[in-house]
Amino acid sequence: MQHQFHLTILGNSSATPTSHRNPTAQYLNFYNRCFLIDCGEGTQVQIRRHKLRLSRIQHILISHLHGDHFFGLPGLLSSLHLLNHTADVHLYGPEALFELLNQIFSMSDTRLRFNLHFHPFDASRSRVIYEDDRMEVSTIPLNHRIPCCGFLFKEKQGLLPIRREAVAQYNLNHAEIMQIKSGADYTDPDGNLILNSNLTRPAQAPVSYAYCSDTAFYPEVVKQIQGVDLLYHEATFCDDMQARAKETYHSTAREAAKIAELASVKKLLIGHFSARYNTLQSFLDEARQGFPETELAIEGITFSM
Amino acid sequence: MQHQFHLTILGNSSATPTSHRNPTAQYLNFYNRCFLIDCGEGTQVQIRRHKLRLSRIQHILISHLHGDHFFGLPGLLSSLHLLNHTADVHLYGPEALFELLNQIFSMSDTRLRFNLHFHPFDASRSRVIYEDDRMEVSTIPLNHRIPCCGFLFKEKQGLLPIRREAVAQYNLNHAEIMQIKSGADYTDPDGNLILNSNLTRPAQAPVSYAYCSDTAFYPEVVKQIQGVDLLYHEATFCDDMQARAKETYHSTAREAAKIAELASVKKLLIGHFSARYNTLQSFLDEARQGFPETELAIEGITFSM
Repeated sequence: MQHQFHLTILGNSSATPTSHRNPTAQYLNFYNRCFLIDCGEGTQVQIRRHKLRLSRIQHILISHLHGDHFFGLPGLLSSLHLLNHTADVHLYGPEALFELLNQIFSMSDTRLRFNLHFHPFDASRSRVIYEDDRMEVSTIPLNHRIPCCGFLFKEKQGLLPIRREAVAQYNLNHAEIMQIKSGADYTDPDGNLILNSNLTRPAQAPVSYAYCSDTAFYPEVVKQIQGVDLLYHEATFCDDMQARAKETYHSTAREAAKIAELASVKKLLIGHFSARYNTLQSFLDEARQGFPETELAIEGITFSM
Repeated sequence: MQHQFHLTILGNSSATPTSHRNPTAQYLNFYNRCFLIDCGEGTQVQIRRHKLRLSRIQHILISHLHGDHFFGLPGLLSSLHLLNHTADVHLYGPEALFELLNQIFSMSDTRLRFNLHFHPFDASRSRVIYEDDRMEVSTIPLNHRIPCCGFLFKEKQGLLPIRREAVAQYNLNHAEIMQIKSGADYTDPDGNLILNSNLTRPAQAPVSYAYCSDTAFYPEVVKQIQGVDLLYHEATFCDDMQARAKETYHSTAREAAKIAELASVKKLLIGHFSARYNTLQSFLDEARQGFPETELAIEGITFSM
């Protein structure tokens, strides 16, 4: 069974875009909630190119204020405005971003046609920034040159699927069914206790996705992302540039793999590749040495669960 | 003889970029002075795609503060910084732009590796914003929703080419030659006056280019751009959307042609096309009805003089 998790990579280049690779952005459709994660320059065009819909975006999460992670945001919001978007948009990011956007829209004498809700976060600690009945999103403090957070998307444990034959056998009413689906045992009219495990089938395990944007090698994240189904971790350099990675508070492919291994994640996705490298094979080879279940965040590819 | 004027179109879309058209930017190499005129989102990638060089840009001119004319600027400047650019860059635009850039670079804790010189201009009146021995650039006040200027590039009248036989005949020295090249007559040792026209050949006429960014139909510009060799004039809509053009302070193709005709320019270039139109043929047909010497500002095309 599918969890309806679809993550599309819109950019995988670090710092400077190249003529064939865009800066960081990911488009996540998770049970029909639509999240845009980071928004480098050109993101709105990438969304169009990959036949995704700008107007479906409900939540925009900006990990930090280096340009390659947010320079596409003013243009994307302007386009939504110009395209007569009216649905609310929620923006999560460092406080200074909101002041900047206000200034930009004031300069151009623009009053957005939709409500843009600002949700500033403090990048120094983890907290839940979004929650509904199905999922929650929390920040993951990272270790970068300026305050920077990743994001952890976790599906909540759903109701247990009840066995049809149990409903018939015990002639269960709606209230009883809902209690059992929530995990309760059942006592029949004769006083017999029926254990929940005899009434329900095992629930599908909830899925989880951790997005670890720009960061130095930082094992402190391991506890928070332990066992996630999918981990995106930046890998700006390969091991040949380890010193440069350290100096710029970025990670190598080997370090990204180490974090994936320490956290026992199911799959690792690496991106944010430096333009110094002409091909990406060396990133993949290096990461797979440490963590075989690694994939490259290739632009336009969608990972589904 | 060529004037060494090469204007490359980097974007021709208005307001929102499409998956195949970029917002406004033009790259002008004029006697090896390199100007970037407006800088919509994605301009740095367009420069790379068209094999032009970011690092050659000396002057950046921003006509006004609508996003489709400057949202690519923070990213372009960041890339120059990250690519270790060290040569000075001069930026001309409305004052508020400079405050915004300072804020953006302060947020990301970036100290640019090159000197970025701010030259704010008042969009309500024309003035010379750049001048050297070969050319000058002045602002052209336009009529848009927010303060907006076009730019007039004018080559200065060069020295007159002296006839070789005159140099020999009168045994001219360097000082005399320079005076004659500047237009002076010559009196020979016997006191005979030799008219300049007998000593020199006619000078090549200086070239001129007027860039009229976003504006409503505005005949006030005609006097300033009279007789230019090349006029770029926005044509956001065709005549079928005349009311919309008026409402948004933009021009139709017919109106752009009318300005070209009134100003007796040699050639008209139209751009800034609304994404409502799937093809550009209607713009060209409409403008050529009023002004036959019209071309479309197609991305990647270079106009040379």
